[in-house]
Amino acid sequence: MKILALAGSLRAASINAALLRAAARLAPPGCTITLLSLGALPLFNPDLEGAPAPAVLALRRAVDLSDALMIASPEYAHGVSGVMKNALDWLVSHEGFVAKPVALLNSSPRAHHAYEALAETLGTMSAHVVREACVAIPLLGAGLDEEGMVGNAAVAAAIRGAILSLQAALAPGAAAGPSFPLA
Amino acid sequence: MKILALAGSLRAASINAALLRAAARLAPPGCTITLLSLGALPLFNPDLEGAPAPAVLALRRAVDLSDALMIASPEYAHGVSGVMKNALDWLVSHEGFVAKPVALLNSSPRAHHAYEALAETLGTMSAHVVREACVAIPLLGAGLDEEGMVGNAAVAAAIRGAILSLQAALAPGAAAGPSFPLA
Repeated sequence: MKILALAGSLRAASINAALLRAAARLAPPGCTITLLSLGALPLFNPDLEGAPAPAVLALRRAVDLSDALMIASPEYAHGVSGVMKNALDWLVSHEGFVAKPVALLNSSPRAHHAYEALAETLGTMSAHVVREACVAIPLLGAGLDEEGMVGNAAVAAAIRGAILSLQAALAPGAAAGPSFPLA
Repeated sequence: MKILALAGSLRAASINAALLRAAARLAPPGCTITLLSLGALPLFNPDLEGAPAPAVLALRRAVDLSDALMIASPEYAHGVSGVMKNALDWLVSHEGFVAKPVALLNSSPRAHHAYEALAETLGTMSAHVVREACVAIPLLGAGLDEEGMVGNAAVAAAIRGAILSLQAALAPGAAAGPSFPLA
């Protein structure tokens, strides 16, 4: 199983990016998790669809080559980060995104606006937001870096659970298609 | 009165940008409305706050020099456009944004997710979302360009009303501060 991981913050010390790097290290045999930076994407402009920038094509190709997505994104001013939404805007019309299983990791469960808005947008884009793979991992203020997350039993278990749920969603016979709204 | 106008779409034929250009032409004497493109902004990265890009500084300076803001932004996949949110992300920590009167123009009233999310974010940023200046102008599918909007009595009246409401919010004795939530 190939999982494409997307972080909604470009900060070098981003907790969300660290969480995804930790997930990559915790991936079980046969599963690879690759983090793709969204920082090289241009701002979304429908007029450029005729000749999308290399970073846009790279993102779409990475989506196509992945079996599932894992997204961890911060909340800025009660909204989805512009970085994350901009990336999704480039994927709205992309066929490879449809029915793709997605795990949404929420590293700051006290914040809920961005998480809910992200789930709404992903559902609208016909991604398959896998409810069981969407986990809240309270990391804000926990002082854990990537190494600390890998070594923390609770965090590691939550990450492994999300991966297993994505695997289950991909298994033959699993319910496919958008599971939104997350009740 | 100086109004800074921000459009959430970079499309050349953007209805929202056309609406703001129409507003600029309909501004009464003593009021100027200037449209600033958000297309030159880099993606938000807190690590770059030490030396923000010229486009970031230009946006912040334009906010500082304005008495009020007028925002018109599309809804993409039930969310705020990444372009608009990215611009706001660069303004979250900017003092000049606090208590700034804002008019939100909704050119596609059937869509409400992005409009509500934008109001939530602006309120969180301590802008003064002026309820009376927030107008819905159903332009999607109306086939009006900038010229057509200026010439359409109903559209022109709605735009003029928004401008007058911003002026009223700036008048001495007017209630200041965030009026969010929009009930």
